Amino acid sequence: MSIQQEVVEAAVRARSAARVLALATRAEKDAVLTALAEALVTHETSVLAANAEDVERARSDGTSAGIVDRLRLDPARILAMADGLRQLVALPDPVGEVVRGDTLANGLELRQVRVPFGVVGMIYEARPNVTVDAAGICLKSGNAVLLRGSSSARSSNRALVEVIREAVQVFGLPADVVQLVPGDTHESVKALMRARGLVDVLIPRGGAGLIRSVVEESTVPVIETGVGNCHVYVDRAADLDQALEIVINSKTQRTSVCNAAESLLVHADVADVFVPRVVAALQEAGVRIHGDETFATHQGVLPATDEDWATEYLDLDIAAAVVPDIDAAIDHVMRWSTGHTEAIVTTDLTAARRFTAEVDAAAVLVNASTRFTDGGEFGFGAEIGISTQKLHARGPMGLTEMTSTKYVVTGDGQLR
Amino acid sequence: MSIQQEVVEAAVRARSAARVLALATRAEKDAVLTALAEALVTHETSVLAANAEDVERARSDGTSAGIVDRLRLDPARILAMADGLRQLVALPDPVGEVVRGDTLANGLELRQVRVPFGVVGMIYEARPNVTVDAAGICLKSGNAVLLRGSSSARSSNRALVEVIREAVQVFGLPADVVQLVPGDTHESVKALMRARGLVDVLIPRGGAGLIRSVVEESTVPVIETGVGNCHVYVDRAADLDQALEIVINSKTQRTSVCNAAESLLVHADVADVFVPRVVAALQEAGVRIHGDETFATHQGVLPATDEDWATEYLDLDIAAAVVPDIDAAIDHVMRWSTGHTEAIVTTDLTAARRFTAEVDAAAVLVNASTRFTDGGEFGFGAEIGISTQKLHARGPMGLTEMTSTKYVVTGDGQLR
Repeated sequence: MSIQQEVVEAAVRARSAARVLALATRAEKDAVLTALAEALVTHETSVLAANAEDVERARSDGTSAGIVDRLRLDPARILAMADGLRQLVALPDPVGEVVRGDTLANGLELRQVRVPFGVVGMIYEARPNVTVDAAGICLKSGNAVLLRGSSSARSSNRALVEVIREAVQVFGLPADVVQLVPGDTHESVKALMRARGLVDVLIPRGGAGLIRSVVEESTVPVIETGVGNCHVYVDRAADLDQALEIVINSKTQRTSVCNAAESLLVHADVADVFVPRVVAALQEAGVRIHGDETFATHQGVLPATDEDWATEYLDLDIAAAVVPDIDAAIDHVMRWSTGHTEAIVTTDLTAARRFTAEVDAAAVLVNASTRFTDGGEFGFGAEIGISTQKLHARGPMGLTEMTSTKYVVTGDGQLR
Repeated sequence: MSIQQEVVEAAVRARSAARVLALATRAEKDAVLTALAEALVTHETSVLAANAEDVERARSDGTSAGIVDRLRLDPARILAMADGLRQLVALPDPVGEVVRGDTLANGLELRQVRVPFGVVGMIYEARPNVTVDAAGICLKSGNAVLLRGSSSARSSNRALVEVIREAVQVFGLPADVVQLVPGDTHESVKALMRARGLVDVLIPRGGAGLIRSVVEESTVPVIETGVGNCHVYVDRAADLDQALEIVINSKTQRTSVCNAAESLLVHADVADVFVPRVVAALQEAGVRIHGDETFATHQGVLPATDEDWATEYLDLDIAAAVVPDIDAAIDHVMRWSTGHTEAIVTTDLTAARRFTAEVDAAAVLVNASTRFTDGGEFGFGAEIGISTQKLHARGPMGLTEMTSTKYVVTGDGQLR
C-alpha cells in the first residue's frame, strides 16, 4: 500500500473514531487525561529508551547540539508533560458551550453550540513533548488527531503514542482518536494536505519553510502558526529605563521562540540618549546589532539591509533603526511585521492608542515584553500554537480555538 | 498591464484604503451607509439603464429565463437594496467589541478586541444585489472589498459600484474601500486567489463548481459557502401531519436556494402510513421523486441512484428513502450531507437529542423547515453568505463573522 493510501486509511479511521469521541462527556475525557498523566510516568523507562535511540541517531547524523537538546527527554520533561495533561483536566470542556442563544419571533429556539472540529492534523518538528500536548488538547476538545512528527523524533513519538492509545482504550474510547501518521517522508505530509473532507484542519508548527509550504499546498483548511518578526518601538514619551529592560527581556529571555523581539525602533527625539544605552546593554547581553546609519555609528554594530528588517533571527541578533515619528514606526512595523506580536513603550496615551489601533497583529503590547504572547501567560492554561492568521483564531490557541460551532434550532412545526 | 498586475494593484489600493476604514467610527460608517441608501434611489435611472444592457445581452445570448430574472433590477429591487443598507445602520458595529478581557496576575491588562479582516474578496455570480449587500456588510465591518461579479452583470455592477464609491468619498473615506475587480475572465479570479498577503479572505458565492475551484486553488484563506444537500428525516415518533408540512415547505417554498431540502428519509415504522401521503403531496406540488424500492412502488416515482443521494437539485426534485432506524438515518445523512442544514421531525426527545448531537452540520433543525437556515431568519439582520466549513464561521455569516480579533495587552514594564 502506498504512503498516500495509508494516510487516507488512517484519516478514515480517525474520522469514525472522532464521531465517538465527539459524544464523550467531560468526565470521560478527564478520566482519560488523568490516567494518561499517570501512564506517562509509569512508562518512563520505555519512553526514555525510545528517546535515547532518537538522540543517538541525531548525534551520529551530526545534528546541532541545540536540536539534540530539544529532542532529548528526561524524567523532569516527562513529569512536565504529565503536569500539562493534569492542567487540561482542570480546564472547562469547550464542547457543548452555548455561544449564542435566542428564541425567535416565530417561537423557534436557536442555540449556537460549540462542537469539535472532528479530525485535526498536526505537522510538527523535533520536540516530542508536542506529541503529548497536542494529543491532550485534541482529546479534551473532542477531536481525533493525526500526528505527523519529524522523523528525527520517530522512536520517541511511537513510544508516546503507544502509551496514549493504551490509556484511551482503557476507558472504552477508540484508540484511533490518536494516531501517528504513517511514513516520515514528505509523501505523508502531502497526503495529509490533500485529505480534504477527511481532515478538518491542519496545524503546522515549526519553521517558516514548513509553514509556508503547508499554507500554499494544502486543500485542507490550515491554521498558520508562529512566525514572529516582532518589533519593540521605543516612543519619544517612553520611560527609558523601562524601555531598556523591555528590549533586553524581549530579545534575550529566550531567543529561539516566536515571541522574541527581532527588531528595535527608536523615536528620533530620544535617540541621542537611548541609542548608546541600548547598544551597550544589548552588546553586553551578547546580542549582535544590525543597525541603520545612526546605530551603525556605534562600535560593533553591523549595517542593516532590507533582509535584516525581514528576518526572524531566532538568535542573539536584532535589527535596529531610528524613526522620525510614530507614523514612521507604524509604517515600518506594518511593512515588515509577520502579524505576531508588536510592542510600544510609551507613557503617552495618544501614542499607545494609535499604535494599538493601527498596528495589525495578533497581539499588540504596551509597556510589556513581547515574550508575554503565550497561552500560558494569557491564562488559557494550554496552547496548541500561536495563530498568525486572521481567520478562525488569532494569537495563542487554547481549547476553545480547537472547536467549531453548530446551530441547533428546535421548533414545533414552523414553516416559511 | 496584465489582468494579474491590475488585480494586484487593485488589492494594494484596497489594502491601504482598509487601513483608513479600519479606524472609522461607527457614526462615520453609518453616515456612509445612510447616504448610500439614498444615492441608490437617486441614481435609479442610470442603474436601471445599465442593468437593461445586461438583461439585453443575456437575452440575446440565449440565457435561461430564470437567470435573466435573477439578473434583472427594477425599482422595487433597488428599494430593497437600499432597505438592506438601512438595516445595517441599525445593527451594532462589531469592530471594537471586547470579546474577552482579564487582568493577569502580574497586572497586565488583557483585552481581545474585534478588528476588521482588512481586505475581503467576493467572487459571485449573476445577482447584482450581492454587489450592494456585500459592499454594505464590508463597509460596516470595516473591511475593504474587492468585488468580482460575473461578466453577465458587468454593466449593473459597474453602475452600482460607481454610486457606492461616490457615497464613500463624500464622507472623506477612500473610494478604494470598494472596487470592482478588473477583468471578467478566469484570469482575474486566479489573480485574487493568489493575492496572499494582500487579500485576507476570499468568499466565493455561487454554484458548487465555482466554490470547489476556489477552495482547491486559492492560497488566500477561503470561507466556503452555500452548497446544501439538505435532508429531512421523518422519525417513527413524528407528528405526521407536521412532517408532511415540513417536507413540502422545505422542498417547495423556494427551490433554487441552498437551504431547500433535497432528500427525504422516512423511518420504516411509519413508512406504510407516511410514504403514500408524502408521495401524493409532493407530486401534487409538482415535485419529481427519485426513490428507493419502497418509494419506487408508487406511480411516477423514478428509481434513485447514488447520484441522487449526492445531488443538490435546486429544482422540483427530491431523493427519498426508507431507513430501518435512526442510526441508519444518521449514517445516511453523514454520508451524503454537505454540512449545511439537516432536519429531524420527531416528538421523541431521545431521538431529537441524538440527531442534533450526532449530525455534523452548520445547522441541525428539529421540527422546523430547512428554509430557516438564513441570517435574516436567525435574526442576524444581514448575511453575506452561509458558511459550510468549520473554520472561523459556520452557518449564516453576519457582521461579526466578517471580523478577526486582536489581543491588546497593556502594562507598566512587565518582564518575563
